[in-house]
Formats: sequence, C-alpha cells, structure tokens
Amino acid sequence: MTMSGTMRNHSAQGAHETDEQIMARRARLLGPAYRLFYERPVHLVRGKGIWLYDAQGRQYLDMYNNVACVGHAHPHVVKALHEQALTLNTHTRYLHSGILDYAEKLLGYFPPELSQVMFACTGSEANDLALRIAHLHSGGKGLIITETAYHGTTVTLAQASPSLGAAVTLGDFVRTVPPPDTYRGDPDQARARFAADVRSAIASLEAANIKPAALLIDGIFSSDGVFAHPIGVINDAVDEIRRAGGLYIADEVQPGFGRTGDGMWGFSRHGVVPDLVTLGKPMGNGHPVAGVVARPELLTEFGARSRYFNTFGGNPVSAAVGNAVLEVIEDETLIANARSRGLELRAGLEELAKRCELIGDIRGAGLFIGLELVKDRKTREPASAETAKLVNVLREKQILIGAAGPRGNCLKIRPPLCFSKENGEMFLARFEEALSEVAATSA
Amino acid sequence: MTMSGTMRNHSAQGAHETDEQIMARRARLLGPAYRLFYERPVHLVRGKGIWLYDAQGRQYLDMYNNVACVGHAHPHVVKALHEQALTLNTHTRYLHSGILDYAEKLLGYFPPELSQVMFACTGSEANDLALRIAHLHSGGKGLIITETAYHGTTVTLAQASPSLGAAVTLGDFVRTVPPPDTYRGDPDQARARFAADVRSAIASLEAANIKPAALLIDGIFSSDGVFAHPIGVINDAVDEIRRAGGLYIADEVQPGFGRTGDGMWGFSRHGVVPDLVTLGKPMGNGHPVAGVVARPELLTEFGARSRYFNTFGGNPVSAAVGNAVLEVIEDETLIANARSRGLELRAGLEELAKRCELIGDIRGAGLFIGLELVKDRKTREPASAETAKLVNVLREKQILIGAAGPRGNCLKIRPPLCFSKENGEMFLARFEEALSEVAATSA
Repeated sequence: MTMSGTMRNHSAQGAHETDEQIMARRARLLGPAYRLFYERPVHLVRGKGIWLYDAQGRQYLDMYNNVACVGHAHPHVVKALHEQALTLNTHTRYLHSGILDYAEKLLGYFPPELSQVMFACTGSEANDLALRIAHLHSGGKGLIITETAYHGTTVTLAQASPSLGAAVTLGDFVRTVPPPDTYRGDPDQARARFAADVRSAIASLEAANIKPAALLIDGIFSSDGVFAHPIGVINDAVDEIRRAGGLYIADEVQPGFGRTGDGMWGFSRHGVVPDLVTLGKPMGNGHPVAGVVARPELLTEFGARSRYFNTFGGNPVSAAVGNAVLEVIEDETLIANARSRGLELRAGLEELAKRCELIGDIRGAGLFIGLELVKDRKTREPASAETAKLVNVLREKQILIGAAGPRGNCLKIRPPLCFSKENGEMFLARFEEALSEVAATSA
Repeated sequence: MTMSGTMRNHSAQGAHETDEQIMARRARLLGPAYRLFYERPVHLVRGKGIWLYDAQGRQYLDMYNNVACVGHAHPHVVKALHEQALTLNTHTRYLHSGILDYAEKLLGYFPPELSQVMFACTGSEANDLALRIAHLHSGGKGLIITETAYHGTTVTLAQASPSLGAAVTLGDFVRTVPPPDTYRGDPDQARARFAADVRSAIASLEAANIKPAALLIDGIFSSDGVFAHPIGVINDAVDEIRRAGGLYIADEVQPGFGRTGDGMWGFSRHGVVPDLVTLGKPMGNGHPVAGVVARPELLTEFGARSRYFNTFGGNPVSAAVGNAVLEVIEDETLIANARSRGLELRAGLEELAKRCELIGDIRGAGLFIGLELVKDRKTREPASAETAKLVNVLREKQILIGAAGPRGNCLKIRPPLCFSKENGEMFLARFEEALSEVAATSA
C-alpha cells in the first residue's frame, strides 16, 4: 500500500470512554464547526419511539426531534429500509417502480396543481434545487426570506439563513422581512403587514436592479419563533411575489408531514397553493430523503433548459423508506394524534401559564408549539438567559428540547408524532418544576 | 382531513407494468429532468455483487457503477445499516462514538496533514461545503476547474460543472482549463502545460478582479475522459493556486475509495497533499454519505468565522455504513483486487486493440479505465456516434456501461471493486462482439 493506503492505529473507544474523552475526540477529529447541545452534552446510544437512552441507560423524553417524526427506530420503517437495501440500491437512470409508487403516494397529499416531484437527499439540496428552478423561471436571483429564517447550508442557502448568526453574511440577492409576529404585533394587522413588507422587499430588490425570483418561507416560521396564525396570513404576500414575476416556495422541511395536525403541510393550513414545496427532515424519519414538489409547468421549463441529477436522491432504498413513513403516518393516524395531543399539551401549558409568569405566549399548531418566555408580561422583555437555562435544567430532568427565535427565548416543542397523553403529562410536570427552578434562581 | 390531507387513489403498479407504462408514469410524476440510460432503458429489480437483474430475471454485468463500490447489496454493509437503524439514528449535536470511530478510521487513510473531517450526505454537498471553506480562507470566489468537469448540482456547483452541457451557464467566478490530455497532447508536456493553463486562469480571474479561491479537480479527471498519468501531472498547478492564495481541493467523489488500485485516493498517486478532499458516491456503497477531509487549520478558521450543520450528515447510521464499507475494502483486499483486475483488464483491452481499429487509447488506473474510441487512429477523429451505439449494443448484451469526455467518445469502465477475473473475461468477449457489430454497421 502507498502512504495513503496505510492505516494508522486506531480502536473503537466509544464503549468505555468518558463524555470528556468523547468530546476531546470530537474536537480533534471533527474540528470546531461541530457544536453540541446543552452545557452537559448527552451521550446517546439508543432510541425507541419517543424515547432516547444514554450510555448509562437513562431514558430521555424527546421533545426536540421533528426528524424522527414517527418515532425513533420505528420497526416498519427500519424493515422497509432493510428489505430494500438487501434487494437493490441504485440511481434513477434505470427504471424502478419504487420511486414511482412513492412519488404517486406522496403527491396524493398535495393539491392537484402540484403534481410532480424531484428527489434529493437533504432539505438543503431541496431548497437549493427550488432556487435553481426559480432562477430559471424568473430570470432573476432576488430572494425574500424572513428575518431569522433557516433554509440550508449550501453556499447559496447559507447566505439566505440569517439564523446561522452574524458570522454568515447575507447575500446581496437577499431581502429579509419580519415574520408575522402575532405576539409582538397586532394579529389583525399581521396579514396586511406581511404583504406590505414583502412588497417593500420587492421594491428594494428592483431598485437594486435585482429581479425577484422567489419568496421562500417556512410554513410555520419555525426559526423565527413559530407563528401559525392567523389562517391566511401569508396569502397576500404570495400574490405580491407572483405579481413581481417570482415564485412562492413553501419550505416544509420543518413543519411538513402532519406535524401541524391540520393535514400534511404548513402551507395548506392557509388555503394557498405554492409553486414549489420543499421537503426534508421528517420525510425519511432520519434517513436522508428530501424532495421538491412542483407545478409541472415549472419542471417542463427546467427540464428543457437545465439539468439535474442526484446520485442518491430517489434511489430504491430512499423511496422505500419514504413510503414506509407515509404508511406509518396513515396507519397510526398520526395527523389526528398530532392534533389531539397538541391541543391537550397547549391546554396544559395554558394552565401552567396561570402559575408561571415566565410564559409570555403559547402558539403553534398540532405538535409544533412555540412557547415564548418573557421577564415581564407587560413589557414582554425577552427572557433569553432564562430560556437557555431552562433548556439545560430540562436536560437534567431528562427532557430534550431546544429554543429558537431572534432572541433565543422561544422554546420549540416538537416531539415525534407518536407522542402520547402520558408523555404530555410527564413533560408538563417536569416543565413546571424546571420553570420554578429557573424562576427562583433568576428572581 | 383538509384538502391536502386527502389521498388520491393510487396503487403500487410496478409488478405488472410494462416498461412503456413505467416510462409514462415517470414522465407524469417526475417530469422531464429525469433522464434514462440506453435507447431501451433497463428495468432493474435486484442487485448482488457485480450483478444487476431486471424484471425478467436477466442478469447484467455492472461495468458502470462506482457507487456500489464493494458490490451491490453487500451483506456486511447492509447488516451494519440494519443494526444501527434498529438502534439509533439521530443528529450530531449529541455525543455518539460511531461518528468518531468512523472519522478515525477514515482519516487513517489520509496523509497526517489531513486530520479532520466534516460530514454531509452527497458529493454535491461536500464540494459545496469545500467551496464555503475556500471562500472564507481566500477571501475570494474564483474557481478553476477542468473543461468537462462535473462537481455537483447545487446553484453554485452547477455553474462549475460544464459536463451538464450548454444549458447550464458557467458562473462568472469560474475559469476552465483543459485536462492533462495525454492522448491528444504530448504526455511529456502535460505537467507544464496544465500548470501554465492554471496560471493563465488565475491571471484571467485577477484581471476581472476576482480573487482565486480554489483549484477544484477530480483526482482522475473522470468526466473529462479519465486521465491518470503521468504521475505528478497536477503538482505544479497545485503550487500555482497556492501561490495565488487559493486552495487545492481534490474531488475524490469518483476516483476515491481504492478504485485506482494505487491506494485509496486519486490525488495520492501524484504524491501531493491537498488542502481539502471531498468524498461521496462510493463512501456508503449507495447510502447517502459524503464528507470533506481537511487540514485542521482550515476548519479552525471556518469554525470561528462561519457555521455549518447537516441534519443527516454523520448520523450514527451513515457512520456505521461508512465504517462497514472501509472494513469490506480491507477484509476483501479490494485495493489489491482493483490493481490486479485492472491490469488484467487493460492487458485484455490492449490485446483487443490489435484487432479493433475503433480503440484509439486505453488509459486509467486500477478499475477506473478510460477507453477512447476513434474513427481513425491517425487523425484521432472521435467516434462519438459509434460510442453511443456501442453503449446500447452492450446493454443488449447485458453489459451496463457509460461514456464520458467532451466528445462523448470515452467509455468509462468502472465496475464494483469485487470484479473477478471471470467477469473480466466475460466483459472482453462481449465487448469484442459489440465492437465488431458497431464497426460492421458504421463501415
């Protein structure tokens, strides 16, 4: 073997390593771009349904994970993965019925105008492809997003993901608009305000000689802090971008696949039909599957004037996994479960808010709940430090959760859709304890 | 359920569909961007080792597929996939030893300067991330690639992938250089010429006020037509880009993981150490795994000044699969096999060339062989139509193969690395038949 073919000594060390040793190994092998959750990171070794387990066998309630949407290591999904991987896994330039059966089933959840799909492996790839389609259609590159959006990690999308922080500069082709914030703004004005903001963004692009290509928005404004209401809030803004020659791209990477409890997609709650819909995270319950659902005239145009191929996208294994996820969502009636459990959980949180002053606002849909924490309900001063603390206190209570929003004071409550009534009760009990602890130390 | 939650009628039709029906369904559901190989596309249903099987049970020899590098549906790889998927699949913001054991094993195949790795899901994502790192390091965006390169499908990389054809416009930040073509140019001059071309490209970028960020080259110039020699051909060009403040990014998505028979990577044959190395296709034997291997000082800089997270990249399942692929490459001594079988195959092709005038040049390394077909050995007029025909004749003879190069007259011979002596004999026999048929009809 040559220099590069020679193995250095190594051995699998995970089994008897301390957390500190694992962290040191991470820093050495993966570098500083890899971040960890929590002051005291969790070393996970197993997952099952709603539960995650650490190396000591401790059980954690997963309130964070919208990826493992039908539950960790779901047997039906793993079986589909295994059986297809044993049979065949190859690219899409041969005929295979798996991708078509899956495409057909998936498109069945969309309004009839959205009748074609292209596959990719990640939400980033899906959003990036949607931009290519929008660039071609509009002849421009101008992109309108919300102020704290996250859309992906490619060269182009990182420039359109302000939630990555100040270190990543926004592209000169990007304009941001405030999300329809119904807590810090008047809900009755939200729809008109959002449309006016998009109109201003279009004008700003045009003034800079940049043709608007798309309005790209998350169907529930996840990274902006979760805004699900009022119904129809985005619709006038969609008219604005279309009038300007751009497309409305619905980013369903976070809210998609039944989480809102009102059907499969965040956008459909508003009764509007996008031009392109991007799918990712929950689509394969953790397996790298993503896609762009489109009006066929856009793909006709794209197919005639450009080219796209994704070696792994839409392969038979990915298709089998995606299909199995849809079957579980149906068989276990997870959309209805998201609605019922979401309502229960919100009722419990409303109850809690009567006793816990830190809770400023509770919003969302189904099992995508945003909970905004404030130091003072009158001034609505963000309780950013308290939220960070709360997330860490909850981790010690074996509840895994995360925060979002421009001030980091919005808890994103987003458990797998197999969440039960008992899971909700457990969460509420520990959450109340944690809130009291945080309130006591910060008072 | 709402409008979008309602299922349209559908049923799995694959089992009793004709190829024509499947093609019609593809066009309807996936649109025109999805292309098929061969005049008469192949409907595959199963794979095992070197073999692929169609719906009628016919067996095809896979001479195309550098993705299923250790063989289709390899039991060791599928077992690793299955066991980890049954156990846990989650993102990298928790501690998990799987990604570290894999990173450690993978980095063991690299020179010591390249000691850190970041994970993604596709070669496109890996190249795109490498560009983000190079942009940050150089402060520029200028990119130098070869004339018929393919580097990926994102907004940025599609602009740096001339092999996508004229429909995709090259970016204004891109300059192309001819590959070191040792058939149509003097091999003794190849190294100096390649360096001079890169120098001119740098000058052209600088004249346009574009700072050079990187020289991004495929370690075996796959899409340019496969150029593996002379050893060291890229090295002076690498010095040029570094002198200009840019990085040398080795795109190992196609040649990587032992295919060249001279160790694991295409670049290492030249005895040069890249700044960044991008990995994809064969890394997971078809599972979506990719990565960027880097000099740690570049990731320190990137981690301090930018952010990256990939939901699926480096998850426990991907790490287990990647690790299993490396184990198979070792256990089955596939690098040595690539070398021996590659030498045998080339010797057989040289023999064939004595009888078949269409063969103009045979080149490559290990089991990555480029075979250039010409109408006339003196004028070297490309036999482009004959090559297209040959690919289709071979398909009828149950040999799956593809072509590349700017004139489409280079066969890419790239079977899974478990290729045997008997597979080679079978290929050579059918290839000779096919060559005779094509020569007879085009004479």
